[in-house]
Amino acid sequence: MSAASLNPVSAADVEHFAGIGIAVERLDGRAEEPYNVDALKRYMGSVDVVLLPESTEQVSQILSYCHERRIGVVVQGGNTGTAGGALGRHDEVLLSLRRMNAVRDVDAVAGVLVADAGCVLEDLDAHVRQLGFIVPLDLGSRRQCMIGGNVSTSAGGLRYLRYGSMHGNVLGVEAVLPDGRVLDALSVLKKDASGYDIKQLFIGAEGTLGVVTAVSIALAPRPASSRVAVLGLGDFDKIHRAFVLARQHLGEIVSAFEFWERRCNELTVEFCGHPDLLARPHAFYVMVETRGSVARHDAEKMEAFIAALRDADLVDESRELSDPDGMDAAWLFRSDMARAHMLSGCMYVYDFSLPPRHQYALLDATKNRLRSMAMYGGPDDPVKDVTIFGHIGDDNIHLQVIARQYGGPVEAAVEPWIYTWVGSHGGSVAAEHGLGAHKGPFLKYAKSPAVIETMKSLKRLLDPRGIMGPGKHVAIA
Amino acid sequence: MSAASLNPVSAADVEHFAGIGIAVERLDGRAEEPYNVDALKRYMGSVDVVLLPESTEQVSQILSYCHERRIGVVVQGGNTGTAGGALGRHDEVLLSLRRMNAVRDVDAVAGVLVADAGCVLEDLDAHVRQLGFIVPLDLGSRRQCMIGGNVSTSAGGLRYLRYGSMHGNVLGVEAVLPDGRVLDALSVLKKDASGYDIKQLFIGAEGTLGVVTAVSIALAPRPASSRVAVLGLGDFDKIHRAFVLARQHLGEIVSAFEFWERRCNELTVEFCGHPDLLARPHAFYVMVETRGSVARHDAEKMEAFIAALRDADLVDESRELSDPDGMDAAWLFRSDMARAHMLSGCMYVYDFSLPPRHQYALLDATKNRLRSMAMYGGPDDPVKDVTIFGHIGDDNIHLQVIARQYGGPVEAAVEPWIYTWVGSHGGSVAAEHGLGAHKGPFLKYAKSPAVIETMKSLKRLLDPRGIMGPGKHVAIA
Repeated sequence: MSAASLNPVSAADVEHFAGIGIAVERLDGRAEEPYNVDALKRYMGSVDVVLLPESTEQVSQILSYCHERRIGVVVQGGNTGTAGGALGRHDEVLLSLRRMNAVRDVDAVAGVLVADAGCVLEDLDAHVRQLGFIVPLDLGSRRQCMIGGNVSTSAGGLRYLRYGSMHGNVLGVEAVLPDGRVLDALSVLKKDASGYDIKQLFIGAEGTLGVVTAVSIALAPRPASSRVAVLGLGDFDKIHRAFVLARQHLGEIVSAFEFWERRCNELTVEFCGHPDLLARPHAFYVMVETRGSVARHDAEKMEAFIAALRDADLVDESRELSDPDGMDAAWLFRSDMARAHMLSGCMYVYDFSLPPRHQYALLDATKNRLRSMAMYGGPDDPVKDVTIFGHIGDDNIHLQVIARQYGGPVEAAVEPWIYTWVGSHGGSVAAEHGLGAHKGPFLKYAKSPAVIETMKSLKRLLDPRGIMGPGKHVAIA
Repeated sequence: MSAASLNPVSAADVEHFAGIGIAVERLDGRAEEPYNVDALKRYMGSVDVVLLPESTEQVSQILSYCHERRIGVVVQGGNTGTAGGALGRHDEVLLSLRRMNAVRDVDAVAGVLVADAGCVLEDLDAHVRQLGFIVPLDLGSRRQCMIGGNVSTSAGGLRYLRYGSMHGNVLGVEAVLPDGRVLDALSVLKKDASGYDIKQLFIGAEGTLGVVTAVSIALAPRPASSRVAVLGLGDFDKIHRAFVLARQHLGEIVSAFEFWERRCNELTVEFCGHPDLLARPHAFYVMVETRGSVARHDAEKMEAFIAALRDADLVDESRELSDPDGMDAAWLFRSDMARAHMLSGCMYVYDFSLPPRHQYALLDATKNRLRSMAMYGGPDDPVKDVTIFGHIGDDNIHLQVIARQYGGPVEAAVEPWIYTWVGSHGGSVAAEHGLGAHKGPFLKYAKSPAVIETMKSLKRLLDPRGIMGPGKHVAIA
């Protein structure tokens, strides 16, 4: 199962693929976008051979051949991942799904979309709009990311709080197994309790158990009304108390509950040039979004929520937005936060889930550790900033360590220590960005040995020759 | 892997279990409730030895011993299943989880419940009530069914439309593997994309891959307001058109959309003595439920929905209910429908999912087949009634064939024909009741060979000696 037992892709192999009508691009390892450079430009691939199948049948032919010849295969969709999972090495073929981009079917009564894996998320959302639906997933990368990749990475995104996980929303998957067999589990049914739910294995497998070639997904009603409130708060505990009040007063219409701390706000103003969303600075910020079917009802609920926050003395400042431009500006401020951090220095970004009671402690623990190692706190220390922002209600915290340079003692001080801290506090080492090329070894800090052994045995069962995503994901756990 | 290679449970085995402190009951195959009789009194077990572990550790000891000695194990929760999955034979041990019934934790910020598998669904719902939550699952059997069984059968229930599937709502599972190893996947996190989602395998496995001993589940906010509308409609197509309008006008507050046809209504009035919900008879009935956080908003939305139905000429009669007694009576009418059928004759009940466009055709096809075989339509024919009711929006249709007696030519006329019809129309042969003891052989009509082979390979991987649920589920697919 080790990558060492695989054969490098040869000129004869390329000839074979071209001979059976599969489109091939040759890169010779060049840092060609999109194939060999990732979205954050942090990871680089070095692939030579890119295969661009146009059908499930062609994907099956490719895998069948690679299985027989023991050639490594890396699967790539929109290549918007941040964990290096979709990049490959010179001795593998890169299987890009971008030419498989047809919508297969929409059932307007059931609200179910069936689409090829290479469909871009935003295109799918546009496709179902006139029927009164949305795709129940929204990500910053919506203009490039593809639905097959969304499923394969179990993407979470901005409105998980409202629409839930891919494990709940994906109804079916068509996948090609590593030996080339087509696994047709492309059901469009919501309730189905007939046997093990095989499609679930491919949700979050990051292309290591086969290639997802098509997906069916339950759509959500397109909201007629949306509102945003931005809140300024004095301490972290108040964020959770505000969240409990949101559940009570905004109930069925709350669709996002984002938070960030003062330093995130300052960096976004400084490096992206966005105007502050509130008039005064605050220790913490919350952005609440509602989506509903009757604007007046939503406005009344939001009003009651803000009043309850004030009664409980939880907010120092609040601002409501319901005009599209104002809401867009607020979302842009929030979504540019990662970019602002990146512009401010050398960013280490961590994508964790943690139970609410440990969320803020992570920031404190990280700062304390770096301070105790004399790396943070002084004007010339190697770490400039340690910040958190994230999504309340789905446990997902993004922690940033901004260093003056990459590598060296800062990286060694933070990793793997931060993964051990998260694992020992009941967290996940990869909330929504996946394990990719490097996080497999950290899995042991957060998952029990029996769970990891079961994962590895599934990998051996479905990909006995280890051709899919060699050297990645649980293969290195 | 066949049951033939298993050893019957012996007196020495029973002594061993008692000796390590596990509570044992001996039935000697008696039709003792709850262990050897199912909820519908259709299936009977013939188990002698019932084990009642009190901890995960004891479950582990039992499985470890049974694995070593190759003894079959059948897992039972509340024994409210309708497919015989929780009943066993004389040569297996029945592992009952009813003594493992502690609530382990509730996180009132995140809204997450962690509970032992043997907790009764209604007890859990009562437990989280004062914190403002509900368990996002509701079944007719709520007073007896247990959460471990709900997870193991991937229970769907009455409000799937609003709250979605167990695959989305279950955050973690603690399970004991067939060899006795404890698989701690009891995460309380919502977003987690770190490796294969192992817990998903146990959702719907019906105890054939191990024993689910504890569950963590994402809770939903308890609604402050609920309303019901009962509608009378002239044809089936109008049900789907009304459903599309419900999505538009009731959007985020619709929580159930049940339908039944005239004959179901008549049987419920006749055999359960319930007063009719509407003043006049109709070809079809719909019961819509809303759940929201502000009663006035919900009332306005319901009013707009009913007005839209009238504008589109979809309903002939409608009745709104918002008083608790009236709503309870309406739900009792709906939930007694299955009992009414049972009282009216010898009931064959089928639990299918079908895409909307094939739902009504199933009823027609079944009636036509039975008519063409001279079994239905005349006053003395062996089939008295063929009816459907179900949940719109989650594709789940219950079809009943009421015969004058069980077995014989009626059963042979309907099965397996009805499973082939459902499979060839994109349906599922078990929407929410599971495969149990008898539906494994029908799986091939609805799932592709590669899917069934993958299921079987998972079974061999996790239960190589085939001790869990021998002769059931995919073991007989």
